[in-house]
Amino acid sequence: MPGSSFGKAFTLTTFGESHGVALGAVVDGCPPGLVLRESDIQTDLDRRRPGRSKYTTGRQESDQVRINSGVFEDLTTGTPIGLTIENTDARSRDYSNIKDLYRPSHADYSYDQKYGIRDYRGGGRASARETTMRVAAGAIAKKYLSVRHGTRIRACVSQVGDLRAKTFDWDAVEGNLFFCPDVALVEPIAELIDRLREAGDSTGASVTVMADKVPAGLGEPVFDKLDAEIARALMSINAVKGVEIGEGFGVAAMVGSVHRDEMDESGFQSNRAGGILGGISTGEPIIARMALKPTSSIAKTGQTRTRSGEVVDVSTTGRHDPCVGLRAPPIAEAMMALVLMDHWLRQAAQNSGEVSLIDRSR
Amino acid sequence: MPGSSFGKAFTLTTFGESHGVALGAVVDGCPPGLVLRESDIQTDLDRRRPGRSKYTTGRQESDQVRINSGVFEDLTTGTPIGLTIENTDARSRDYSNIKDLYRPSHADYSYDQKYGIRDYRGGGRASARETTMRVAAGAIAKKYLSVRHGTRIRACVSQVGDLRAKTFDWDAVEGNLFFCPDVALVEPIAELIDRLREAGDSTGASVTVMADKVPAGLGEPVFDKLDAEIARALMSINAVKGVEIGEGFGVAAMVGSVHRDEMDESGFQSNRAGGILGGISTGEPIIARMALKPTSSIAKTGQTRTRSGEVVDVSTTGRHDPCVGLRAPPIAEAMMALVLMDHWLRQAAQNSGEVSLIDRSR
Amino acid sequence: MPGSSFGKAFTLTTFGESHGVALGAVVDGCPPGLVLRESDIQTDLDRRRPGRSKYTTGRQESDQVRINSGVFEDLTTGTPIGLTIENTDARSRDYSNIKDLYRPSHADYSYDQKYGIRDYRGGGRASARETTMRVAAGAIAKKYLSVRHGTRIRACVSQVGDLRAKTFDWDAVEGNLFFCPDVALVEPIAELIDRLREAGDSTGASVTVMADKVPAGLGEPVFDKLDAEIARALMSINAVKGVEIGEGFGVAAMVGSVHRDEMDESGFQSNRAGGILGGISTGEPIIARMALKPTSSIAKTGQTRTRSGEVVDVSTTGRHDPCVGLRAPPIAEAMMALVLMDHWLRQAAQNSGEVSLIDRSR
Amino acid sequence: MPGSSFGKAFTLTTFGESHGVALGAVVDGCPPGLVLRESDIQTDLDRRRPGRSKYTTGRQESDQVRINSGVFEDLTTGTPIGLTIENTDARSRDYSNIKDLYRPSHADYSYDQKYGIRDYRGGGRASARETTMRVAAGAIAKKYLSVRHGTRIRACVSQVGDLRAKTFDWDAVEGNLFFCPDVALVEPIAELIDRLREAGDSTGASVTVMADKVPAGLGEPVFDKLDAEIARALMSINAVKGVEIGEGFGVAAMVGSVHRDEMDESGFQSNRAGGILGGISTGEPIIARMALKPTSSIAKTGQTRTRSGEVVDVSTTGRHDPCVGLRAPPIAEAMMALVLMDHWLRQAAQNSGEVSLIDRSR
Repeated sequence: MPGSSFGKAFTLTTFGESHGVALGAVVDGCPPGLVLRESDIQTDLDRRRPGRSKYTTGRQESDQVRINSGVFEDLTTGTPIGLTIENTDARSRDYSNIKDLYRPSHADYSYDQKYGIRDYRGGGRASARETTMRVAAGAIAKKYLSVRHGTRIRACVSQVGDLRAKTFDWDAVEGNLFFCPDVALVEPIAELIDRLREAGDSTGASVTVMADKVPAGLGEPVFDKLDAEIARALMSINAVKGVEIGEGFGVAAMVGSVHRDEMDESGFQSNRAGGILGGISTGEPIIARMALKPTSSIAKTGQTRTRSGEVVDVSTTGRHDPCVGLRAPPIAEAMMALVLMDHWLRQAAQNSGEVSLIDRSR
Repeated sequence: MPGSSFGKAFTLTTFGESHGVALGAVVDGCPPGLVLRESDIQTDLDRRRPGRSKYTTGRQESDQVRINSGVFEDLTTGTPIGLTIENTDARSRDYSNIKDLYRPSHADYSYDQKYGIRDYRGGGRASARETTMRVAAGAIAKKYLSVRHGTRIRACVSQVGDLRAKTFDWDAVEGNLFFCPDVALVEPIAELIDRLREAGDSTGASVTVMADKVPAGLGEPVFDKLDAEIARALMSINAVKGVEIGEGFGVAAMVGSVHRDEMDESGFQSNRAGGILGGISTGEPIIARMALKPTSSIAKTGQTRTRSGEVVDVSTTGRHDPCVGLRAPPIAEAMMALVLMDHWLRQAAQNSGEVSLIDRSR
Repeated sequence: MPGSSFGKAFTLTTFGESHGVALGAVVDGCPPGLVLRESDIQTDLDRRRPGRSKYTTGRQESDQVRINSGVFEDLTTGTPIGLTIENTDARSRDYSNIKDLYRPSHADYSYDQKYGIRDYRGGGRASARETTMRVAAGAIAKKYLSVRHGTRIRACVSQVGDLRAKTFDWDAVEGNLFFCPDVALVEPIAELIDRLREAGDSTGASVTVMADKVPAGLGEPVFDKLDAEIARALMSINAVKGVEIGEGFGVAAMVGSVHRDEMDESGFQSNRAGGILGGISTGEPIIARMALKPTSSIAKTGQTRTRSGEVVDVSTTGRHDPCVGLRAPPIAEAMMALVLMDHWLRQAAQNSGEVSLIDRSR
Repeated sequence: MPGSSFGKAFTLTTFGESHGVALGAVVDGCPPGLVLRESDIQTDLDRRRPGRSKYTTGRQESDQVRINSGVFEDLTTGTPIGLTIENTDARSRDYSNIKDLYRPSHADYSYDQKYGIRDYRGGGRASARETTMRVAAGAIAKKYLSVRHGTRIRACVSQVGDLRAKTFDWDAVEGNLFFCPDVALVEPIAELIDRLREAGDSTGASVTVMADKVPAGLGEPVFDKLDAEIARALMSINAVKGVEIGEGFGVAAMVGSVHRDEMDESGFQSNRAGGILGGISTGEPIIARMALKPTSSIAKTGQTRTRSGEVVDVSTTGRHDPCVGLRAPPIAEAMMALVLMDHWLRQAAQNSGEVSLIDRSR
């Protein structure tokens, strides 16, 4: 059963391989009347785009999005929005060296176990290139939430290897190539990346994503809790291996009297819960963090197996990011936006004020 | 839109409040021919049951499950399995003290924002009592996976407050009241719980869950990656605030040449990936960890608001666990089992060997 | 993959066999604040109940529904509503005569082909008894739509064998045992049923269902058109073999200039479309018709096969309706209500007035 | 909530308007290893294509499909298959005459009630042009079912206005422009169409679709019965107002002893059930029929309303089919194929032989 769709009320369905003809998506369920132009989407695609600096992969893709449907005279009509991006830099290089072996930490082995066949060029469907369509759809959700609720969704790189952000200056994030909120860290990160590239190695990273002005009441009890949905959304991004909400793993060592967010007249006095209680948003900022593993494609030689069972050495040359985490913030924002948008519409379905038959203040 | 269902091919839909008439579930999609008796389910329910020791809540519930359908002469028939548990110890005490205020760290405030009405007795639908039905359905999935594939799913408490397991002796886990894999920790945990109860406080914890002998190939690329589904499943458990797969957050500080699991003739030489690559199982053990916040219901006085905006002090007396994490392992196992079972059937749909039209070895 | 759930925003999931322990359902997504008591549901269950007259099966079931959750102090809370009905008249008679053979026109053969195992007692899951839960859930939807929009959903038996209703007096429908809108037909139907029972035979029938005061705008373009959803809903009722909307099959012989519903100041001048254009409700009454095959369980001897391939004669004795269509109107109403309710909530998700960012009149 | 997706295990999601940039689809869940080329899809698109003869619309569209993903070296890989067709003949004519009025029997009024905005050019999303993507996806399903099971799915026009097919010669169907199984009817239909075109009018029609060699066991009890799914699939096609399975509405007037299909050693002796019992396929041919209303776009003047409430006359000139039913057979085949394919995979999920733990013959 397929896994290329996301969301129940605001749904995203994607297709496309790294070196296929084109990537594309269908965004269904968008409310009508939203002003939407290709440029609204392109902005975020450009933030994610490879080749922005020498610190990311050298692949040159313009990632130019085309809106095929669902928008009429610059307004969404409520019908599905079809998006496509042509693959222009899918060089037809020689893949015979990786065609029959399982690159360590890649999806080669597991895809082969699953399907018995795979498009090995550039990682095929498992390529990070797949995330363009998340970013494109996320841009629509971000715009809607922003216009409708004033919601602002931002993400930053809070850790690269051992380097951890000590200050969180959101205004600094877009001003450096690493989406880093701590300007003191920019230089050290640059040096680390240079050093890793030289060594033919890579590093992990961690990304923080925050959403302000989220309406209270989003999320469904039990299985579709808002934090569960965010966890799924972020963990579905390539390379992510951990997700936290609010205090995250820190809660294991806390006592209840310290952890709980007390209230006064003006509302919550703290936000250790990360904006979610019982799986439902409280109106406080939603805060999540995710960890990304180091890039798997590295020049340093490693050992692996071929399809026929032979043990061989492998070294991945080519255009690769020494740290995939550095391009992840726009993707994290997009996934957060998709979850919030979906749950806003789900909330409207069941609980739009007018639907209630009772006086809620009784 | 509703959130009380889990899974696409093996689906669980639950209902029930802490102090309602009964809890129940529908398990749909179970393959026919599995030997299933109420006792198969009861075993896990008893492991989760409150009142097993003085370290957990004193609520007395027999949690006796009844199979209403879908089983004929002790064999599943392929039709939906209806389960119910009557609420027998839902004391009709006086709830007037919490009826109109928002207990800190509880779902009271967010439910009110969402629905404008709530069953405040014992936390209603937000009560941990809801997890009985996860455990019941999980027991069916566990049995199927075990009979079919030899899959074994186990969970343990790996951290309570500052106390962390240093050794992992799975054989010790069921031998102590805390599902603790490190026997040296049993006494300290007991002391910590006693101390907290006396202080009217509570503590967080962390739980590790592992699945052996999972078929390779489970999980769907992109949004329904196996790790994304596990993350959602575990994060949907009450009080969970963080989820990790394999090395988890540790990957942020690792380099690629160390992190990647290399292969030799016999397969993977390590399992830092936690049994999942590209969102698809590799056949290696699946390892996940989750963090649970400290129990919110504590005797220590805290500040909060009433529905009408008045600031008041609140102290929760009654039958509460000082550490909800201590009862979480059976729930974590159940959620892992539900994910694996669902994805096994999803895999069978698209990729059952016989369906393939090509020679997979070519 | 399971098929026991219905609806996306207002979902019904059912379980239960004819001779199992109990039947049950989970209704998820109901808006909070609806006044709901067991008696609201019981009324429709009693209309469907067997044994109301000598013209239906003699099985004695009180079909007493119990609300297990989701309602607090007589108001829905927004959480899932769990319903159960105990099977009280599931006589443990001897089924050895049908256990190994395929009764003609029953689901015996196809279930066996599908699952390889079946609960043969009383038809198991394929029994019409399964429809009790449709009626119960439909009663909730009917009440909500009635309170919220003034929607009224009614059904009647418009044909029994060769006897067709010539007048449609909706006020007469509940006044006779056959839900017949043409009082002149009541006596002939009674005679036909008596004759058939004596002959050990049965007859088909056709049922008309109508919904007034349905909001315009319900239904989704393309696959989830409102008429497509109604067709699926009605065709999923046991024994139904045909569904029509508005003029139905009559349209094949009509010309466009006659068929189209023209408009004037006051709206549509006719309603040949049956209240739906382009798959979306127009606000005109929705009109559907369905045909039910004759009861398969008849005393008249027929030929069939056993599981082992032997050809045998079969004659079904016992408590059976000579015309299942006579009890179908409450079921048709329920399915119509479930579709409309689901699509009302779906419409609220995407198109609730407040969500729009544009002036709709521009 | 969106309605542009079809199927659960084999899913189709479409986008596109009549006069937009492009139409497209994502087909997710296709098993790997199927030989697939664009020509496999193009064949059916060409059968549906307008402008094949003077009896259909004069719109000139090459409807050239492009496969963007999911196929590697002519084999499906198991990942989503992205399809697009560019709109090349979307003439930018003047639509000011229909922009603000509701053409009778069109979706204009209902879309406006739903969304408050619409792409009025050529009917937008409500155009029959949307069905290209159904045909494209259906071609993949048809090929798979044919290779895997030998399933053959065919459709024909069995009635046009008062002209009904009296003989069913499937071999004749593809040999005439009207997909007519009764060659004696070809000339009369041609005359009728000419007459209608001259009169500026249109006619309804009815289409029969049949599937041979369908595996037994497909379809899910209760809500997702195979006939319910077929009913929804066919009724979701533009202009369809009625659907029948097997004897269809004829069953209302039949007695049980005549209707039931008896069995002997070789299987069923008749097939009045249309290949489905209890919602599950029996292995007999599946037979369905659907009725299509006359084309709404006719030259004959009719009365309607504008958005502002003014009553006006309307006459639709332009390139329209006098009988939309004449192009419907490839669409009916496609929808039948999508349902059967989806249910074949769903059946494989739960009931693949190897999954069973019991001896099915016991």
